[in-house]
Amino acid sequence: MKLWGGRFAEDTDELVLKYTASISFDERLWPYDIKGSIAHARMLAQCGIISPAEGRQIIEGLENLAEDIAAGEVTFSLDDEDIHMNIERLLTERIGAVAGKLHTGRSRNDQVALDMHMFVRDAVSTVADAVKELQTALVRQAENHMDVIIPGFTHLQRAQPILLSHHLLAYVWMLERDKSRLSFVADEVDRMPLGAGALAGTTFPIDRKQVANELEFSSLYENSLDAVSDRDYLLDFLFAISTIMTHLSRLSEELILWSTEEFGWIELADEFATGSSMMPQKKNPDVPELVRGKSGRVFGHLMGMFTVLKGLPLAYNKDLQEDKEGVFDAIDTVIPALKLMAGSISTMRIREGRLADALACDFSNATDLADYLVRKGIPFRQAHAIVGQLVQLAILQGTNLNGLDLGTMQAAASVIESDVYELLQPETVVAARQSRGGTAPTAVQLQLALAKEQCGLE
Amino acid sequence: MKLWGGRFAEDTDELVLKYTASISFDERLWPYDIKGSIAHARMLAQCGIISPAEGRQIIEGLENLAEDIAAGEVTFSLDDEDIHMNIERLLTERIGAVAGKLHTGRSRNDQVALDMHMFVRDAVSTVADAVKELQTALVRQAENHMDVIIPGFTHLQRAQPILLSHHLLAYVWMLERDKSRLSFVADEVDRMPLGAGALAGTTFPIDRKQVANELEFSSLYENSLDAVSDRDYLLDFLFAISTIMTHLSRLSEELILWSTEEFGWIELADEFATGSSMMPQKKNPDVPELVRGKSGRVFGHLMGMFTVLKGLPLAYNKDLQEDKEGVFDAIDTVIPALKLMAGSISTMRIREGRLADALACDFSNATDLADYLVRKGIPFRQAHAIVGQLVQLAILQGTNLNGLDLGTMQAAASVIESDVYELLQPETVVAARQSRGGTAPTAVQLQLALAKEQCGLE
Amino acid sequence: MKLWGGRFAEDTDELVLKYTASISFDERLWPYDIKGSIAHARMLAQCGIISPAEGRQIIEGLENLAEDIAAGEVTFSLDDEDIHMNIERLLTERIGAVAGKLHTGRSRNDQVALDMHMFVRDAVSTVADAVKELQTALVRQAENHMDVIIPGFTHLQRAQPILLSHHLLAYVWMLERDKSRLSFVADEVDRMPLGAGALAGTTFPIDRKQVANELEFSSLYENSLDAVSDRDYLLDFLFAISTIMTHLSRLSEELILWSTEEFGWIELADEFATGSSMMPQKKNPDVPELVRGKSGRVFGHLMGMFTVLKGLPLAYNKDLQEDKEGVFDAIDTVIPALKLMAGSISTMRIREGRLADALACDFSNATDLADYLVRKGIPFRQAHAIVGQLVQLAILQGTNLNGLDLGTMQAAASVIESDVYELLQPETVVAARQSRGGTAPTAVQLQLALAKEQCGLE
Amino acid sequence: MKLWGGRFAEDTDELVLKYTASISFDERLWPYDIKGSIAHARMLAQCGIISPAEGRQIIEGLENLAEDIAAGEVTFSLDDEDIHMNIERLLTERIGAVAGKLHTGRSRNDQVALDMHMFVRDAVSTVADAVKELQTALVRQAENHMDVIIPGFTHLQRAQPILLSHHLLAYVWMLERDKSRLSFVADEVDRMPLGAGALAGTTFPIDRKQVANELEFSSLYENSLDAVSDRDYLLDFLFAISTIMTHLSRLSEELILWSTEEFGWIELADEFATGSSMMPQKKNPDVPELVRGKSGRVFGHLMGMFTVLKGLPLAYNKDLQEDKEGVFDAIDTVIPALKLMAGSISTMRIREGRLADALACDFSNATDLADYLVRKGIPFRQAHAIVGQLVQLAILQGTNLNGLDLGTMQAAASVIESDVYELLQPETVVAARQSRGGTAPTAVQLQLALAKEQCGLE
Repeated sequence: MKLWGGRFAEDTDELVLKYTASISFDERLWPYDIKGSIAHARMLAQCGIISPAEGRQIIEGLENLAEDIAAGEVTFSLDDEDIHMNIERLLTERIGAVAGKLHTGRSRNDQVALDMHMFVRDAVSTVADAVKELQTALVRQAENHMDVIIPGFTHLQRAQPILLSHHLLAYVWMLERDKSRLSFVADEVDRMPLGAGALAGTTFPIDRKQVANELEFSSLYENSLDAVSDRDYLLDFLFAISTIMTHLSRLSEELILWSTEEFGWIELADEFATGSSMMPQKKNPDVPELVRGKSGRVFGHLMGMFTVLKGLPLAYNKDLQEDKEGVFDAIDTVIPALKLMAGSISTMRIREGRLADALACDFSNATDLADYLVRKGIPFRQAHAIVGQLVQLAILQGTNLNGLDLGTMQAAASVIESDVYELLQPETVVAARQSRGGTAPTAVQLQLALAKEQCGLE
Repeated sequence: MKLWGGRFAEDTDELVLKYTASISFDERLWPYDIKGSIAHARMLAQCGIISPAEGRQIIEGLENLAEDIAAGEVTFSLDDEDIHMNIERLLTERIGAVAGKLHTGRSRNDQVALDMHMFVRDAVSTVADAVKELQTALVRQAENHMDVIIPGFTHLQRAQPILLSHHLLAYVWMLERDKSRLSFVADEVDRMPLGAGALAGTTFPIDRKQVANELEFSSLYENSLDAVSDRDYLLDFLFAISTIMTHLSRLSEELILWSTEEFGWIELADEFATGSSMMPQKKNPDVPELVRGKSGRVFGHLMGMFTVLKGLPLAYNKDLQEDKEGVFDAIDTVIPALKLMAGSISTMRIREGRLADALACDFSNATDLADYLVRKGIPFRQAHAIVGQLVQLAILQGTNLNGLDLGTMQAAASVIESDVYELLQPETVVAARQSRGGTAPTAVQLQLALAKEQCGLE
Repeated sequence: MKLWGGRFAEDTDELVLKYTASISFDERLWPYDIKGSIAHARMLAQCGIISPAEGRQIIEGLENLAEDIAAGEVTFSLDDEDIHMNIERLLTERIGAVAGKLHTGRSRNDQVALDMHMFVRDAVSTVADAVKELQTALVRQAENHMDVIIPGFTHLQRAQPILLSHHLLAYVWMLERDKSRLSFVADEVDRMPLGAGALAGTTFPIDRKQVANELEFSSLYENSLDAVSDRDYLLDFLFAISTIMTHLSRLSEELILWSTEEFGWIELADEFATGSSMMPQKKNPDVPELVRGKSGRVFGHLMGMFTVLKGLPLAYNKDLQEDKEGVFDAIDTVIPALKLMAGSISTMRIREGRLADALACDFSNATDLADYLVRKGIPFRQAHAIVGQLVQLAILQGTNLNGLDLGTMQAAASVIESDVYELLQPETVVAARQSRGGTAPTAVQLQLALAKEQCGLE
Repeated sequence: MKLWGGRFAEDTDELVLKYTASISFDERLWPYDIKGSIAHARMLAQCGIISPAEGRQIIEGLENLAEDIAAGEVTFSLDDEDIHMNIERLLTERIGAVAGKLHTGRSRNDQVALDMHMFVRDAVSTVADAVKELQTALVRQAENHMDVIIPGFTHLQRAQPILLSHHLLAYVWMLERDKSRLSFVADEVDRMPLGAGALAGTTFPIDRKQVANELEFSSLYENSLDAVSDRDYLLDFLFAISTIMTHLSRLSEELILWSTEEFGWIELADEFATGSSMMPQKKNPDVPELVRGKSGRVFGHLMGMFTVLKGLPLAYNKDLQEDKEGVFDAIDTVIPALKLMAGSISTMRIREGRLADALACDFSNATDLADYLVRKGIPFRQAHAIVGQLVQLAILQGTNLNGLDLGTMQAAASVIESDVYELLQPETVVAARQSRGGTAPTAVQLQLALAKEQCGLE
């Protein structure tokens, strides 16, 4: 059923049909297409554009069709190009020619825009829930390990000891920004396009507000050209998913590092790891690796969408059909990624012994020695230089700062006293950073409370 | 002056210094660096971490330095790596060793984060102003040409006649979404990172709220690791600029098309066009072409930033230094692009004669004939087919729908009456689309009023 | 059947299995997997690593399996993760435990690398054939329309008249470069990875050269780590497809422009165009629009692959499983795109009347007037300025250069004589550009012959 | 000096001039512009298009100008837009009106194309030299450490012990593929565009072959439209640089990992590392971090160039001016990156003691135990399962495979004999992988010889 055949003398080339058809991927829009059509039909009847009886017939037909599709009793056909044509054909088979009236006052251009808006609105909310799930897992682990100290890194070099909880909470804040971005997308997608027609509005006395109300949109596209050609909300969504994947790629990298024999800080649970077909000893962090890798496809979809839109004149162009597969795939990528990371985080085992060993022999307390000197009146830059020399000395002696004797220390800076050794303990170093947002247990407790409150977690 | 030389036996390789130094591009951060340092110094003094006298000395030194830099009397040195080190060295030269105390309780990691937040906050506002400038130009042209009808396109094929004003306003709404995005960036960047130290907070009893208040930030980063490693706000900004450039690339494409001899709808003003070194007759739309092309570099910067962040462990890594040049270039690209488009739009001449000729002989009224048949009781799909045949007939006869005689029309559909010819006039077609957001003059007047109100334009 | 379960206490999470499994997309590799396994088995037997009888059993089992899969009698299972495990399980079901010996001396890491190399080798050749198909269509149209003149553009402004054939041949050369790129990919993919084991080679006395010979590879990966982690050939392929799509997007843009009512140079054949569900008069260039849009997804896949590889340590990481879907989709995008463009080009109608009208009234002969003045001894820059003034004058008079009377011309430059009018005809202008690669009919005939020879066309 | 002012009534807007001018970045093309102009002038004279005296005057003028520019005695002006106009103006100032004749038979479109081709040809060669420099550094380190064993990874989990040399050589092969790609670019750029004029060729009887010969190009663009609009060679170059940066990002990641305290395999030389302004103990791998991060900007430039070209009609469009800055920046990024990596590799210290400790206590010999069982007649899959159980047992016992007593082993598989302990030594494991491309010392020696030969290294 090609609905636009009138003008054409020759049949469409088979390959053309296959290449331009979208039913293979847009069929998942069917619930939105039907819901939108019901609202449109109700409005048409209410405005007297079709009769009440016609309205009822169409709505009942659509409702029955929805049940059948949900029950898996319907097959869509490639000949009908897209989900809209398929549903129209199926409806016609059921209720006859009156089905044709459903298309009054609308075009596929505004119809597909409506479907995608409704789809994205739901998807945004599902993604946000999955983000929250991961935040909850992180917060739970943070709460359960408030006393675990890990080396904090800059440049992947040990910098200063920090609480593991502090580190985990950093991701909670990143994810909270992702929720802000999703919330922005939700606002942007809350704009009803139907009634724009093909591009210029319609000659029928429709009531767009009514449709918007029924479908729970709080605003309308105020320009019909914009309504059918706007894909900004899809850029917004792809961008929001891209930042989530960026954050997940960072968390994944850390889980992978921490799971190495060299770090040995954590062990992923058996159910979130996989083995090797060749090497019997292997326990591979496949999940974080795959999540890290999958950032690529999502960035690619974003870039693809920008490319599609670049230089495109108004209003609708067929290029815009390329707006769906990337979005669908991004959603299907990010939701399990979030859930799998939540599962991985929740079930990982912290190897506290290995962590304690690690901290016993490093230089991540060096800043504190410098600060100690500053508090004794030495300008920071000079203090920094003194500690640098002590570090070099300790390396030569095969020890760390705690391992230097007091005489050696005092030779470098006479103000150093024996209280310095207490100061150099990881626990002391951590506890000293009480500034807001710092890693001291008190500060992290406060942070945890704020995180739970601001992120709406329990 | 390498401030971290203590631990090192060998000198840094010259090329290393050059490659890792950022002064060549981060020097533009100097006003923010100094402003941030003043706030930090004031807080240090207030909290008793340095003495009131030291505080005064440092603040005065910084204020004097700022004046000298603004006056162009200062040269920065590559040896000092970055803007922070340059300013610290310059301050030391002026006020002596006390300058070293300024670095108490902070690190370059949180310092540069603060500078970039302040820089971006200002830049967002400048970009938003430029967006508004273009919106104003579009609205002005829309107001001044409310009676000009142009062919409206889908698939770059004439679809239905529309008001030029309607078309121009479509871009006003796109740009309004860009302002929403910028506004989102403004919210996201309104978070104060200073006090995070290198990664873990600081051992000094600082007051981050005071610094935030002085620098007019309304919230703090609540996690120090996040504070020094977060570059989300730069992704947000690059994304917002990318969507602006996407919109500008679309507008540019249209200006280029409309300026062709083939379309001939507009003529760009001489001062916004250029000529050819070879072909004397040429008047080239260089500005929209270049704006269209420059979308590429901005998308590239966004993609580059995602690549930088992909898989990066916490907290600060040197890779993050790659966060600046792309952002700076994107800003330097988008602001003149907006201004030049505003200028081009404001000064272009609408060739109304050419437009009238164009509309006199096309088929963009075909939908209205179909709608007419629908109103006479024919189902839409059937009406569509009838009109399709009439179009084909008219093409064969070398005319358009208005050119078919009534008998021919009635042979196709007996319900057609002589009032059809009035209906097929472009003015009638346009006026008929009174649905909200449609192209009828009344609807566009309403839209214009809404646009001015919602976009804050005059 | 998880083949690595030995070390694990807990079952794999269901979602993990689904997320990490690749069978849904890598099943299309089955013919290569079986062909590669047969070569491996034959080699194992020949080297005495398995017995001749075992070798025969395995090879026969694989051959029978291949027939059954080809006949559609086999279903793959998600439980078996990927195509390799599926085939191993199916083989085991058929020939029993001896199937386990097939995995001797290889790993899934080098096995999948081999499969992808063989797959890409075939795909490269199929894409090259499709490129040639489009070249042939372009050459054919060029040959058939050697006398058609069109306006040549720079800045989408009419610059100088050119032969349509010249314009079409420009794409033939672009596509020839694409074939060079594909040829480069063919060289790069011609390197046999099997025998690399999981990462370090194998302890069995295998003969990699024999496998390479049987599978027609002319070289080996000389480093086992490189063999399992190299994805450069996929970057190369995605890049080659991206440049093809770039060229097609440019050709598409032109077909779209030329099909507009405003240009009116061509009409696409009915079978390569589509209609509108709403507007009966529309004939939409859906194919070139979609091809243009689909450049986005291919660029995205390339960018995605770069993102996957960025910062990945050696050797195999699970991220690398993300190497397939993008490549598959790119191939499935570019091949029909090339064929559809070939079809569109072959069947389009050139509207010669419209073209003749267009050329009758423009300024694209202005350069020739300038060159004429140069030949009369006036320096080029001065000649350029004179012609610029004459153009401005003609515009004011509502005519073009041919329409200016001789007196007016001579007032601007006394050297102008009456032979100038002949010189200003499009045919003369075109014929004058006899420089190699120029647009004169003689030059284009030469070019056409060169193109056919160098591109291997008939 | 605007050379196309004749047709224009109004002055160009200042901002337009600044936005469209390219002199700020294309000035580095001056040597190529002059060299190309000299060849063009010589050809014009030889073909009798200008007189021998004019030819001599122009060539001498250009040669003198080149000397002055090289000596830093010339300043370019923004008013002259680009390097071509600047040089023409400077030449005119020196030799008067005859300079105007230099532009005979060419346009800025083919002139800039020529300049970029010559520039890229040189740059490709410089990049290739830098690649070779890094290959040499890797080969040198491989030769010097043939006896060092490191853990080989898959999934960043220890898989099998390998030679450090084997690992380093993997990068030599990657880089060799980069040289192939550069070599492909060199072929693609070896095509002379001059003579294409603005788009259609020229009316003057020029001799393009002569120019090509003088400038050492071995082929011509055979289509003038293609000659001025082709930017494929820049895509090719950006792609080649992107793959280099991908490889460097991987090598960087490994240097960063290996430099951590947790791995502790290497120590970067002081001159290739930097310190921290805050933490005195830090020795940061800034160079590899920055190189890793800079992959982003190069990918971005590639993506930007694709975006520029997407959907661009023929022939020259101003968008194409966006072809330079990204390429220049990519070159300026990759060359020092290669040199710095060469320096880092050459000067890093291998911490052999740490490596030996690491290998003493892992399970990376598990595959060899499985292979041992296979050689004793157990099917691989069953052997794999047995070893998996032994690994689990060893972990429970707090030891590794070597640490299990023979009885325990035999309980799992009765075929195990006491020779198994020798087999489990890292040296034995490594030496056992003698398959071509494997990690056994003999295989790596062969590989090293092949690498030096095939990569042209000493």
